[in-house]
Amino acid sequence: MSDAIRIGLIGFGTIGTGVIKLLDQNQKQIRTRLGCPLTLVRIADIDLKRDRGVRVAKEMLTSSASDILEDPSIDVVVELMGGYEPAKSFVLRAIRTGKSVVTANKALLALHGAEVFAAAEKAAVDLGYEAAVGGGIPIIRTLREALGGDRNTAIYGIVNGTANYILSKMTAEGEDFDTVLKKAQAQGLAEANPTFDVDGIDSAHKLTLLVQLAFGTTARFDDIAVEGIRAISQIDINFAKEFGYVIKLLAIAKRDAQRIEARVHPTMVPRSHVLADVNGAFNAIAVQGEALGSSAYFGLGAGMMPTATAVVADLIEVAGHFRRKARGRIPPLGYPLAAQVKANFKPMADVVTEYYLRFMVVDRPNVLAKIAGILGRHKISIASVIQQGREEGATVPIVIRTHHARERDLRAALRSIDRLPITRAKTTAIRIEDSLGS
Amino acid sequence: MSDAIRIGLIGFGTIGTGVIKLLDQNQKQIRTRLGCPLTLVRIADIDLKRDRGVRVAKEMLTSSASDILEDPSIDVVVELMGGYEPAKSFVLRAIRTGKSVVTANKALLALHGAEVFAAAEKAAVDLGYEAAVGGGIPIIRTLREALGGDRNTAIYGIVNGTANYILSKMTAEGEDFDTVLKKAQAQGLAEANPTFDVDGIDSAHKLTLLVQLAFGTTARFDDIAVEGIRAISQIDINFAKEFGYVIKLLAIAKRDAQRIEARVHPTMVPRSHVLADVNGAFNAIAVQGEALGSSAYFGLGAGMMPTATAVVADLIEVAGHFRRKARGRIPPLGYPLAAQVKANFKPMADVVTEYYLRFMVVDRPNVLAKIAGILGRHKISIASVIQQGREEGATVPIVIRTHHARERDLRAALRSIDRLPITRAKTTAIRIEDSLGS
Repeated sequence: MSDAIRIGLIGFGTIGTGVIKLLDQNQKQIRTRLGCPLTLVRIADIDLKRDRGVRVAKEMLTSSASDILEDPSIDVVVELMGGYEPAKSFVLRAIRTGKSVVTANKALLALHGAEVFAAAEKAAVDLGYEAAVGGGIPIIRTLREALGGDRNTAIYGIVNGTANYILSKMTAEGEDFDTVLKKAQAQGLAEANPTFDVDGIDSAHKLTLLVQLAFGTTARFDDIAVEGIRAISQIDINFAKEFGYVIKLLAIAKRDAQRIEARVHPTMVPRSHVLADVNGAFNAIAVQGEALGSSAYFGLGAGMMPTATAVVADLIEVAGHFRRKARGRIPPLGYPLAAQVKANFKPMADVVTEYYLRFMVVDRPNVLAKIAGILGRHKISIASVIQQGREEGATVPIVIRTHHARERDLRAALRSIDRLPITRAKTTAIRIEDSLGS
Repeated sequence: MSDAIRIGLIGFGTIGTGVIKLLDQNQKQIRTRLGCPLTLVRIADIDLKRDRGVRVAKEMLTSSASDILEDPSIDVVVELMGGYEPAKSFVLRAIRTGKSVVTANKALLALHGAEVFAAAEKAAVDLGYEAAVGGGIPIIRTLREALGGDRNTAIYGIVNGTANYILSKMTAEGEDFDTVLKKAQAQGLAEANPTFDVDGIDSAHKLTLLVQLAFGTTARFDDIAVEGIRAISQIDINFAKEFGYVIKLLAIAKRDAQRIEARVHPTMVPRSHVLADVNGAFNAIAVQGEALGSSAYFGLGAGMMPTATAVVADLIEVAGHFRRKARGRIPPLGYPLAAQVKANFKPMADVVTEYYLRFMVVDRPNVLAKIAGILGRHKISIASVIQQGREEGATVPIVIRTHHARERDLRAALRSIDRLPITRAKTTAIRIEDSLGS
């Protein structure tokens, strides 16, 4: 059996602990697959005191990442510290000294991917980032390799477990956003500052990567329109049910002959669609391809051990290339960065979709006619209406499902309607995806 | 741009036609990913006359596979003729002359995998067979690479589109097996001789491969217990509904510390489980791993273009290895055949599962007590009962859902019950999988 592949780990947090456990538990199986041992030799973290519940030799620990980055005997660096800096500097240093890198850092790759991918290509090292999207779901290698011969046309992803957990709980238990968020925070399922998860930022980071992989085009974080789930309320979850929908935070990307649209927002998904059944911390990504049609990939999108499986799978692959002197075999995106097509992103105002609209209006004869009239003047046609309760003079909801409409027209119509004297609160608009494929 | 990788295709049928179309349509994208052109240079088939709807230069066609196998300029052979012989001889000849092979032939690999895999390892060529299981679903590379660092504990697959189509239609439209089969045959969705699909043989072929990939153990076709769907009737589909189940033809494999059980049979799946929603020609494979937990993979399991995407993905990978002189990088199973663990398969009699039982008995007081008594004496306890209609002296169904019971005990109990004078027809037993994971 040949020499071990030596790994340095930067960031000894939850996922790092999972990686150590998995490398230890499945040592023999990994050695069999790789043809040599895969050995963790050094761990860098700023906190060397905390007990993580795994046994690690004291001399493996260091508080200085340089002890890994400057150690020529280390073949592969695993970056699991997260955040932009110093993670970015560490990853680039590792690459430039000829080490392959495995990372779970979607924020880094979403914002600085072009620079990191280019550095990896230039140095002809491997960059594995399966754990950056969908936790244990092998969506990166699926898009990079399995779907590489097809022309992908759309992606629909539930890619943030925290937001999905909150929406699932709100739907199942009838509690409001703030209550569920507080409980999730108490259980460690949401961070003290939950903004990346609930405001859609994390999902948009992941979509930035998925678009580049699936469509072969550029995608910057700023190309993606983002709306979070804070404004979702029980009343809309219940009306969604009446229309046969479930509300999910979806990351959506579609391409037509000219343009790409990429957006993250709460979305009404048909009850019968597979994505509607993805609950709790589960993630799922559905892909439409011209030849393949619909395919979908499900699994746990976060958590110590599920995410660790993705990191270890990357380690086995990257170490295998190292061992067989075949590094840089597949560029990080599955195609050379030089071949990436400059994408033309559709502004949100041009996006065409169906809408759920909830108007809060004075209950008075002719209110619906007034609203319908304004919608009609903006070329928005109505698919169905729910008008509940009749209590002259009170504030009541009128709920409308539209046919396909252009966002620009919808915004203009809502501006007019929200200015009417009969309108008592800002209108709620939630996009519907009825054409998800089967 | 470097020299083209040259492909020879043996078997110009539906999938072959799809491969030709896809290579042509996505030529540019494939060249970008591969770094060189991927060029089909020769096609062998016994029927050179039929119009397949794709344009192919006449001089590319040959009726002799030897023209491909003996052409030293051909780098990769695609075998899409199916069947055992001469496919096996062709594949082995290709491998032995140092050509990499891509095949969709699950029957061949299920029965002669050990020989073919060993030959590929020995010759250090690549063998791609993504299209052999799940059509366009990348389950082979997922098990071989993405889940390679985890210890998989169970697989549940809907891996035969024809059987799934028939069961879905029977469930949705209330028609009986023979009617739906005839319609499927008329539409080209089932073969004139449907035995491989409806009798579970094709699913068992695929399970043979999945077990080897997921568990790292041996699996021969004969290790798998197989039952088809011909005996499924409307009455059982309807009772399944009452219990909250859907009937699917599942390929199931589980491992415990000592043994593996592997079986293909009609199975009642909880209505709420993701596999219950997989309808028509769709396939799905759910995998349980110790670290990853549940993950699942969905897509079109058959058809010209979906299957062609899997063949072309393999071609890109295999050709990439060829180009970069990295062939044989990953053995066909993801681990060397020498490291394959000899599996100890559980005989069906030892399998423990829940059962749906339908007794056809004379409607007479005390019949249920009699049946329950015999079941109890065989250590089978009852979870629930449906007893419909009351028509003294007529033949009526009594339907029982059992708790977990051993197959051996169940068979003994049914032998006793089927001999009772009150029993008017052979009892129907359908296994239930309630512990599918989420």
